[in-house]
Amino acid sequence: MRFMKKDILDMHSLDPEEITLILDTAMGMKEISRRPVKKVPTLRGKTIVLFFQEPSTRTKLSFEIAAKRLSADSVAIAGSGSSMAKGETLIDTVKNLEAMRPDVIVMRHGSSGAAHLVADRVACSVINAGDGIHAHPSQALLDMMSVREIKGPLAGLKLAMIGDIAHSRVARSDITGFSKMGALVSVSAPLTMIPPGIEALGCKVAPSLEDCVADADVIMMLRIQKERMTDVLFPTEREYAAWFGLNRDRVALAKKDVAIMHPGPMNRGVEISSDVADSQGSMILDQVTNGVALRMALYYLVAGGGRHADID
Amino acid sequence: MRFMKKDILDMHSLDPEEITLILDTAMGMKEISRRPVKKVPTLRGKTIVLFFQEPSTRTKLSFEIAAKRLSADSVAIAGSGSSMAKGETLIDTVKNLEAMRPDVIVMRHGSSGAAHLVADRVACSVINAGDGIHAHPSQALLDMMSVREIKGPLAGLKLAMIGDIAHSRVARSDITGFSKMGALVSVSAPLTMIPPGIEALGCKVAPSLEDCVADADVIMMLRIQKERMTDVLFPTEREYAAWFGLNRDRVALAKKDVAIMHPGPMNRGVEISSDVADSQGSMILDQVTNGVALRMALYYLVAGGGRHADID
Amino acid sequence: MRFMKKDILDMHSLDPEEITLILDTAMGMKEISRRPVKKVPTLRGKTIVLFFQEPSTRTKLSFEIAAKRLSADSVAIAGSGSSMAKGETLIDTVKNLEAMRPDVIVMRHGSSGAAHLVADRVACSVINAGDGIHAHPSQALLDMMSVREIKGPLAGLKLAMIGDIAHSRVARSDITGFSKMGALVSVSAPLTMIPPGIEALGCKVAPSLEDCVADADVIMMLRIQKERMTDVLFPTEREYAAWFGLNRDRVALAKKDVAIMHPGPMNRGVEISSDVADSQGSMILDQVTNGVALRMALYYLVAGGGRHADID
Repeated sequence: MRFMKKDILDMHSLDPEEITLILDTAMGMKEISRRPVKKVPTLRGKTIVLFFQEPSTRTKLSFEIAAKRLSADSVAIAGSGSSMAKGETLIDTVKNLEAMRPDVIVMRHGSSGAAHLVADRVACSVINAGDGIHAHPSQALLDMMSVREIKGPLAGLKLAMIGDIAHSRVARSDITGFSKMGALVSVSAPLTMIPPGIEALGCKVAPSLEDCVADADVIMMLRIQKERMTDVLFPTEREYAAWFGLNRDRVALAKKDVAIMHPGPMNRGVEISSDVADSQGSMILDQVTNGVALRMALYYLVAGGGRHADID
Repeated sequence: MRFMKKDILDMHSLDPEEITLILDTAMGMKEISRRPVKKVPTLRGKTIVLFFQEPSTRTKLSFEIAAKRLSADSVAIAGSGSSMAKGETLIDTVKNLEAMRPDVIVMRHGSSGAAHLVADRVACSVINAGDGIHAHPSQALLDMMSVREIKGPLAGLKLAMIGDIAHSRVARSDITGFSKMGALVSVSAPLTMIPPGIEALGCKVAPSLEDCVADADVIMMLRIQKERMTDVLFPTEREYAAWFGLNRDRVALAKKDVAIMHPGPMNRGVEISSDVADSQGSMILDQVTNGVALRMALYYLVAGGGRHADID
Repeated sequence: MRFMKKDILDMHSLDPEEITLILDTAMGMKEISRRPVKKVPTLRGKTIVLFFQEPSTRTKLSFEIAAKRLSADSVAIAGSGSSMAKGETLIDTVKNLEAMRPDVIVMRHGSSGAAHLVADRVACSVINAGDGIHAHPSQALLDMMSVREIKGPLAGLKLAMIGDIAHSRVARSDITGFSKMGALVSVSAPLTMIPPGIEALGCKVAPSLEDCVADADVIMMLRIQKERMTDVLFPTEREYAAWFGLNRDRVALAKKDVAIMHPGPMNRGVEISSDVADSQGSMILDQVTNGVALRMALYYLVAGGGRHADID
């Protein structure tokens, strides 16, 4: 099968065959990071621009390490200190980037839809590394890769997602992606953190947290963004932990071998207790390891093989 | 011909033969960025330090991409968070950089003359990426490359430059460079933005904007730096646009195939209207593309071939 | 001899044979930076993370250039804009870094002991690039390399150290390292800048600055951190210069061929006069040059040869 998409923008625009190809490719890439020489010449002479308009450590680092392990050249520009601070429009900024002949622009932006806007206007590939509260497809894909690696095919798996669904691009992309592959996604959160109509993405809203995690194969916690924690959304961290934090007792309601996931960075003692975060079922660091492999696969499919060569 | 200069500091210190050699070399470099593998090993094992004391997106990125396409190692240090913030002098900072054995220091600095000061004191090459309101030679050279590419030899071409000449290092370098190659440069701006004695650089001050653009082969707009837009210099953006902004009517006074240039980032609707910026005659993005090739040529001439080998 | 340490954390944990191996290896690395092609493939495919939680120019740049000259991939993350700003613990941050499979984490942190804390919890190598007021081993090692290069074996050499011993990790690492190799270290400073019990590290406190420098082979000045210069520690810069600044008269008390050292960045006219800083005996820039070679050696020993291969 040949990957024909120019861009990776969200999980809506990827079909199950494409998702499967991405996950298969990523499993192959994972082996490279285990070698003594963690580098292949696949994307030598390709230029990847990391354009992050919002702060990020792990996502940007993951994309950067992925680029280097494929021998691509990566360059980073930040929002602050950039031309945009001098009054340039987003479109002019990316047309300028494009004029320097990159192969891929990886972008994170505070506005939902920014990556689509850009992708329509540049000839190079665009990978959305998070746009507003809309989508974060590489996170969803690495989550799917991580679950598939340990649980096998995603169809029929029960996935419980708990946290601030309303403000989470990770939630939107994970719900769309996992449900597209046949997993059964159930969500739970304070009412103020569940957006109306979320079921349309392919999940159901559980009547209680206990219902949500009951018999789950995977529990995926979302990060509470403390900067958004106002008394309108939720009174205090302590109450959040008491009512929606994941602890041993709640994990015990799920399947025995339940996988615990979190996109990071974690607030220990708020959305997840330390003993659960560090328990044997925790896949939190596996997610990070797989993230590098998954992003290597995305680069390869849009800029290396993919549209240019067959993979079989 | 062999390029013998250690540094690229301003357009005054380059003679027409050297300028021609730089532009010819840059045309050769341009082809590299069109290849599937956009990288040659020419400067492998060379170290290039990007020392930007003023914020920059496109110039720094252009220098960084140019370094990577020649396989040089580039490292960046910024002014903030640097030793200079701890009280070190500029000279001590660059002597420290020099001690790490770089081949080229690319520097941008807020003070006019900073690059000369440094170049006199270090054994490695220095490329001035903008010093105060003095010079920005790589911008002038990429502008000359872009014009020559589309219009042929520069001698006899009519170039209209409009905007804040007084505070623009781009203006000074372009006027010096184009007039040195025989182009006829005419400038127009509010009186508060024309420095006394500017004619000495090789241009004439047009009696009106209409005179300036009449019959021009090239119109080069300068960026209005909003942070400098005080009522002393000019009342409002709207009035600036009305009196000195480039629009269709004013373009119509120039030659039919006039080339429109702008060093970026643009303030659309202030110094240039959007329809002109996006018109067929606009070379604004070609300038960006050529900028990478031009900087590859500068690196090559000062650190690779140039002083060390013949080019024929 | 084979280098068996996973980490480089401080000078206490290195024995004289290991120190000698590091310095010998660094002398070999130094030659690489003198070549036209300043690059060897030794660490190709290794990933080095530069994790600097405190601002730094020269140390970070030195570690980055050292990585590139060995062909390792280096990626940098800063404290600000990182996950830690979002509430993540230091341990979670580094476990996340580790999950991306780096070979070495170079870290600078404001808290004494941070590097040890991290090294105990990750499988990859950790190089301490400065933790609080505790240790800065690569600085001490490059200082020892620089002295040995010019003075021969360290045993029996008289080293005078002057400045804010109390707040200096450089001082602690240098005192420990030089005295371990048999040098005689004497310190002098205002009483407020000498920590009680400093003799336990292997130095003596001189009764006066004149006693300290008398007959010295090496005078090592410490940087006065102006941000810490309060009237509790010391009244004014001028008084500091008068009482503890190094000038020609004080240098004249030492051996004729005394070597003058300073870890940088210097405050000229405060802890050191300009004529001394620029005098023939000044090794300040040699320290910087040797710093790159020393860090190449550290990388090589922990990630390349060292634990994996014999060196003879």
